[in-house]
Order: sequence, then C-alpha cells, then structure tokens
Amino acid sequence: MAASISVVLVSPRNPLNIGAAARAMSNFGFTGLRLVNPYDVAFREAKSAVKSEYILEQARVFETVAEAVADCNLVIGGTSVGHRDLHLPLYRLEAAGQLVRDSPTATAILFGSEKFGLSNDDMSHCHWLYRIPARAEHGSMNLGQAVAITLYELIRDPQAETQRFDPAPRAEAADFERIVTLLYQLLEDSGYIQERMADPAEIRLRNLINRLAIPAADAKTWQGILRQIQWKINSIKT
Amino acid sequence: MAASISVVLVSPRNPLNIGAAARAMSNFGFTGLRLVNPYDVAFREAKSAVKSEYILEQARVFETVAEAVADCNLVIGGTSVGHRDLHLPLYRLEAAGQLVRDSPTATAILFGSEKFGLSNDDMSHCHWLYRIPARAEHGSMNLGQAVAITLYELIRDPQAETQRFDPAPRAEAADFERIVTLLYQLLEDSGYIQERMADPAEIRLRNLINRLAIPAADAKTWQGILRQIQWKINSIKT
Repeated sequence: MAASISVVLVSPRNPLNIGAAARAMSNFGFTGLRLVNPYDVAFREAKSAVKSEYILEQARVFETVAEAVADCNLVIGGTSVGHRDLHLPLYRLEAAGQLVRDSPTATAILFGSEKFGLSNDDMSHCHWLYRIPARAEHGSMNLGQAVAITLYELIRDPQAETQRFDPAPRAEAADFERIVTLLYQLLEDSGYIQERMADPAEIRLRNLINRLAIPAADAKTWQGILRQIQWKINSIKT
Repeated sequence: MAASISVVLVSPRNPLNIGAAARAMSNFGFTGLRLVNPYDVAFREAKSAVKSEYILEQARVFETVAEAVADCNLVIGGTSVGHRDLHLPLYRLEAAGQLVRDSPTATAILFGSEKFGLSNDDMSHCHWLYRIPARAEHGSMNLGQAVAITLYELIRDPQAETQRFDPAPRAEAADFERIVTLLYQLLEDSGYIQERMADPAEIRLRNLINRLAIPAADAKTWQGILRQIQWKINSIKT
C-alpha cells in the first residue's frame, strides 16, 4: 500500500516542516514525496533532515497541484476547516485511513501550507477531504505532525489492539510457602505480628503475599533478601 | 480520560520539541504536562509555542522521574528500542492505547530525551512499555511527532472508522432523459455518432451518462451547458 501513496506538500514554506514530513515518511515506510511550488530555500535546507535524505533527494517538484496528482486515481486532502463551498465529503481520519487502505489505486494525499492550509482551488482537485479529529478551537495542526499522524493511521494494525502479554509464571507453591514462613518469622522477631496483625496472622500474611503474584524467576531472590534480614536481626539479638 | 493523563518529558533538550509536544497536547485536549530535568533555556524558549502557552505555563517541573510520577497509579514509557534487561512487556501503540483508555487511574506517559530516549533507570519506573510501530531500521522518531501520534491513538474513535457519506441524490429521471436527448442531438450535429458509435447509439449514450450519476443539484447546470453548445453549433451551421 505504501508504495502506491504519494504525500503532496502544497506550497510548504518551513524547511523544518518539510524535513519532519520526510522523516515521518521514512519512519513509516513511505517514499513518494511530491512538492508543489515549495519555497526554494526551505526545500534546500530540508534536505539535511536526519536519515530521510533519500526521500528528499527523490522528491518530485511540480508547479501546480494538477501536475502533481496527474497520475493518481484517488486524490484526497487533509484539512482542519472543511470544504467551505465545495460540497465534498469530509471524513474523520479513522474512516479516511480505511478508505485509502481499501483503495488499490495510486493515491495522492494533499497537505496545505503551514499558514493557510489547502485553498479552495487545491481542494477542487480532491475527490474527498479528511480531518484529524483535533479540537476545533485549537486551529490547525503542525504540518509535520499532521503528516506523521496521517501515515500512522495508514499503517496502523487493528489486530494489534488486542495484543496482551501473559503475566510471568508465578513461583511454585513450595517457594511461595518458604517465603510465607520466612516473612512470618521475620515479622514475629521484629514484633510486627503481635502489635498490628489480628489472628489468624498466618492466613492474612499468605493472602497478602499471594496478591503480590511473585514471579518464579524472582522467588529465590526474595528468599535471599528475607534470610539476610533475618540473619541481621538474629545477630543483633545475640 | 485526558484529564487523568500526564505527558512526562524526561530531560528534553530542544525547545522546538517541547513546544511541539505542548501543541499536540492542546490539539487533542490534554493539559497535564510534566518535565523532568529539562534544559532551562529550552523550556523558556518553548514557552513561546503558538496557542499552547497555557499548557507550558501550567507545566510542572521535577528533578527526578520518581517525583514526576509519584501520584500516578499507571506509569508507562514510549521506546523504540524495547526493554533491554528489564523484562517489561512491550506493547504496540494500538494495544497500549486500549490499555490506557481502559485504565481509570492517574496515568503518566514517559517520553525520553531526543538523543537517548528513556534510560534503563527511567524505564525501571514503568509498569510496561510501548512502541510506535515504525520501521526499526529508521531508529527513533521525532519527539514532537511521537507525542502527537501517541495522543492521537488515545483520542482515536474506532466507531468513526465506518463513517461513510451517502452519494448525492441523483437527478430525477425526467432531467436525466433531457440530458440524454440534448447530448444525443449534440453528438449527431457534431458528427460524433455516425463516426464512432455503433448502433444502438442512444442506449450506449444513456448507459454512459447513467454511470456519471449526475447529482440532482447539478442537473439544470448540465442542461444549460449542453443547450449553450447546441446553440453555438446551430449558429455556425446557419
């Protein structure tokens, strides 16, 4: 999918933003960068962006949106303000991502300039528009972040949502019981059990340690810790 | 959910990144920014970030990660390199977003410095880690983009994936038929039908126009266009 998608920056002015867009593309495995009428100095400066030089070196520069999207079958635009008088569908990014992923054709995604976004003229080349679901009051997003978020949505894997790690295997019961015994002895010797714990102290202690779910890999370490403290207490007592 | 989440930048060095993080937070409605041991000059410069000043003004500064996350019940960290020797679960962002959204407790999300990411020390404060599913070869992401993508995943609405716009209502059949008649006449008078269209020309033409799905709102405009061209052809013929 990534190979059939072009990121089209229309009239970008800030080299940091062009670099940030290229970097986000490299992060997510997209290579087709196109620039429409970029500010020349900005484009040259941007070519120093870390690890994404190859994307900027291969970037194609066009004078008009029409030329930049000429070979694309699907043309969409990102906007925070909507379609004004164009009566184009305005999708949320979540839906736009689905539509682009489902589309087998060459796709151009247009991003407007930092200051003005896409013009009505730019948008009239689009088949539909989308918006990143940010708070309307805040106004537009940073260009580099808008590109990054859009590409993340495209490569996002819904299957991964349910990824879960099994908890570590718990200590075997013999080790668990040794820890209960060691801590019980320690609490008796240090005077904790008489003072604060109601009977049956051992059952309460076992439940307390049970809730820690001590991993098997840590069971010997905890026993060592408790034995060392017990040894210290014994050495003081004598 | 946004109110219970703190974005914790650990040792940030670049004012542009602090500003970009604050801007992304404002975009997505998050306000709790915390900085651990920030480079002072960077923090002061960042306070000029557009429209996110209130977030930076309210940002809390701490000397250690332990102090920064002290009031949080869930502490997680973003990393591109994984847990090294810490044996912490490393989720993909899609899963991490689900887990954070499902957690009713105060949550801290740690982001490491631009250059080194989170240290093993920083990560040892985390209950689990997550990674943005970028290409491993590329290395780390830009800090501002990493914050923006993470917060987008948190506010992302799975319901919105299926959002679709109904196509515009089509022209009523009488208008459709007028357009077929007008274009048929035009193609006869301009010599197109005799030359290129096999019989039955009218059926082929009706199918061709049918596939355009002309919207009701545009039906009169198309009739006007065809009538004007017809008028011009008639005026030349005479």
